[in-house]
Amino acid sequence: MSERLVVIGGDAAGMSAASQARRRRDPDDLEIVAFERGNYTSYSACGIPYFVGGAVKEFDALIARTPEVFRRDYSIETRMRHEVTEIDLERRAVKVLAVDDGTESWEPFDDLMVATGAVPIRPPIPGIDVEGIHGVQTLDDGRTIFEDLEKNRPKCGVVIGAGYIGLEMAEALRARGMEVSVVEKAAQPMSTLDPEMAALVVDGMTKMGIRFLPEEGVTGFEARSGRVSAVVTEAQTLRADIVILGLGVSPNIELARGAGIPIGSAGGIEVDRRMRTGVDRVWSAGDCAEKFHIVSQVAVTIPLGTHANKEGRVAGINIGGGYATFPGVAGTAMSKVCETELARTGLIESEALEAGFEIVSTVTESTTRAGYFPGTKEIRTKLVVDRRSGRLLGGQIVGEEGAAKRIDVLATAVWNEMTVDEILNLDLSYAPPFSPVWDPVLIAARKAWQAVEEATAQAD
Amino acid sequence: MSERLVVIGGDAAGMSAASQARRRRDPDDLEIVAFERGNYTSYSACGIPYFVGGAVKEFDALIARTPEVFRRDYSIETRMRHEVTEIDLERRAVKVLAVDDGTESWEPFDDLMVATGAVPIRPPIPGIDVEGIHGVQTLDDGRTIFEDLEKNRPKCGVVIGAGYIGLEMAEALRARGMEVSVVEKAAQPMSTLDPEMAALVVDGMTKMGIRFLPEEGVTGFEARSGRVSAVVTEAQTLRADIVILGLGVSPNIELARGAGIPIGSAGGIEVDRRMRTGVDRVWSAGDCAEKFHIVSQVAVTIPLGTHANKEGRVAGINIGGGYATFPGVAGTAMSKVCETELARTGLIESEALEAGFEIVSTVTESTTRAGYFPGTKEIRTKLVVDRRSGRLLGGQIVGEEGAAKRIDVLATAVWNEMTVDEILNLDLSYAPPFSPVWDPVLIAARKAWQAVEEATAQAD
Repeated sequence: MSERLVVIGGDAAGMSAASQARRRRDPDDLEIVAFERGNYTSYSACGIPYFVGGAVKEFDALIARTPEVFRRDYSIETRMRHEVTEIDLERRAVKVLAVDDGTESWEPFDDLMVATGAVPIRPPIPGIDVEGIHGVQTLDDGRTIFEDLEKNRPKCGVVIGAGYIGLEMAEALRARGMEVSVVEKAAQPMSTLDPEMAALVVDGMTKMGIRFLPEEGVTGFEARSGRVSAVVTEAQTLRADIVILGLGVSPNIELARGAGIPIGSAGGIEVDRRMRTGVDRVWSAGDCAEKFHIVSQVAVTIPLGTHANKEGRVAGINIGGGYATFPGVAGTAMSKVCETELARTGLIESEALEAGFEIVSTVTESTTRAGYFPGTKEIRTKLVVDRRSGRLLGGQIVGEEGAAKRIDVLATAVWNEMTVDEILNLDLSYAPPFSPVWDPVLIAARKAWQAVEEATAQAD
Repeated sequence: MSERLVVIGGDAAGMSAASQARRRRDPDDLEIVAFERGNYTSYSACGIPYFVGGAVKEFDALIARTPEVFRRDYSIETRMRHEVTEIDLERRAVKVLAVDDGTESWEPFDDLMVATGAVPIRPPIPGIDVEGIHGVQTLDDGRTIFEDLEKNRPKCGVVIGAGYIGLEMAEALRARGMEVSVVEKAAQPMSTLDPEMAALVVDGMTKMGIRFLPEEGVTGFEARSGRVSAVVTEAQTLRADIVILGLGVSPNIELARGAGIPIGSAGGIEVDRRMRTGVDRVWSAGDCAEKFHIVSQVAVTIPLGTHANKEGRVAGINIGGGYATFPGVAGTAMSKVCETELARTGLIESEALEAGFEIVSTVTESTTRAGYFPGTKEIRTKLVVDRRSGRLLGGQIVGEEGAAKRIDVLATAVWNEMTVDEILNLDLSYAPPFSPVWDPVLIAARKAWQAVEEATAQAD
């Protein structure tokens, strides 16, 4: 008899799982239905700032696969603008609300894939719900912001929160010729970087005319005719014709929690290495699911399309009767803010200390190409290293063109628990247009190893 | 009593060793003298094509450290235009010829560092010694070529040999507006790549107007007034106002061999992991020394500045009384030919088969940035994988801007003996300006893993 897989959420995690399950099971063996409350499937939310800023001209380019493609090529039915409002684990069915006409129905499942993603954090600040204040999470959000910009032609934009999406949106608004301020409660942007590395990001923003306002909590908003006109911070009132909330996201787990699917200590849906939740034949992947961090060895939540894709793939292979495991994440992330590229992997200093490591850390300056080669740019590499073993715990890179992608070598090194002594001997590629003869990563490892040796000598 | 280190060869390997030895031993404990037969120390031979082609304007930019810097900052004496012509291991002294005045002297040593590098291959083709035919190895060669080009303004250039230096020099001549042909005995350029990857390099050359003539052995040269005027191949006579020999180099071991220092099976000076030769307190590093290949597990000779620097460093630490080892090489190399970037690591197909592996290999097409992002370029990745274990044995990348440096992830994966199944789950960085959500390297690993699974299923 045919079985049925219900997928909640039509983006990366959900649709990767659906596609992989389909590869292993024919439509007469497994029916697959996906419910998506928005208007788009399998899209690049990370592309939103580039669409808003104008680098990407076609909105549709951000959509990897449409419902039609899933139906035609994968025999996967995707019901758009259908929101799952309840999961009944006893009856093994989900309650679905058709957003457009308000009708509700119960849909049975044998396997359930919970890929509900994340929701932008919207703190309960007075006035936050007036027009012109936008979160950025779904492609629908992206379209709404774009239409607001096109229609209302705001001159002053305020971004609240200086994380990845906040800074990328700040750049996008700046690219449209707007005056842009970024308000941040903390003393630095990019809390995912150590302070001295984050300071370089501020330099890059400032150079491009983006105003960075650290240590300013937002206390309220002013509105005119129902639309935002100013952001009120602890220090000042800032004119704001449009406001972007870049305060991060949190796992969207209410549906799962309501059904009794176990939630973990990090605040996401608990999953094992095969992406099984605590409930039989209920799976989860993506932003709503916890991930095992291979360095800190604890559960974390990290909303990233790369993880969602890989986890969804693993879930789908297992749903399809195959065997695959997801080994965890290394905390790798990257971004580009104006001309400044930044990237990280593993643990930053504060995270390493919290995880119980004693550390040595070093910052190394180098160049992206041979020092004498035209177009060579600065690159700064910070390594965080276990004081005793010399094992690389994390790396951070800030620089200009050609800098950030080098983080992948460090990510691979972290993954393999390499010591900086081993790393400095890695046979990395060299040619003058691409790197100095000692690649910046190797120079960083060499310096870090020296620091470890000195620390060891002092400790003896 | 003070000891004496004599270094033969003033480039990367020799001077890295000298500098590291100095860090550990004061001048009154260790006197260091380096003999260099040319005019320059510690230079970037890899930068020669970019100086010749005009991308690098200042010749001096290619020199990392001058003799004056070594004297002042390191108390290392470098005697330029002094050639060591004999090593006497019994007397522990070297015979030195002062090139300029022809005087000879014997110089004693306690430690001897043999860093004689490599010599360009000059086959005994009739006419090869006429004016206008240049090898490319030392910075002196680079200067000679540049001066020839400036003085004689040749219109037609012929490069013989389509390896790294040959193709880079072809690009350099083309950048000067010359008509350029590359003559190659083999059917493909870049014998260090598999044929279908090398074919992409031919496409790139052709697009830039460089003529590639495969399967044409050179049989002679024609000259007019003592200067080359044509290259005669098995197929035709090619006008040539200047000829560049890009036939590779061989380890410069005659001096060592003459002294009885053991030469290995790969044709270089045999060294252990501390860079000790078979003779007590005689060390070697760089192009003249053999390297252990970590995948094939045999000795190889690979002339590359990266290895020379690292090996020299290791030798110098050990000479200085410290402890360091050189773990070997992974066969990583990269280049840029016109707009085409190419890189390799580990073993190509033929090398893997020769090393006794049964393999599966796959070629994957992807893009350097998100598919929708402006400036995204094609990248093709070939993986060579052990059929049984799925272990990555080698990788090759050919593409345009942003492609080649990704080889470093594969080099790090090869180094750590990762399987493609492990690689596909690596937490590599992602942002639309830098990669698709599945990085090309991960897509390649995913496809290769599938191929391994299929091969295993068939074998069962």
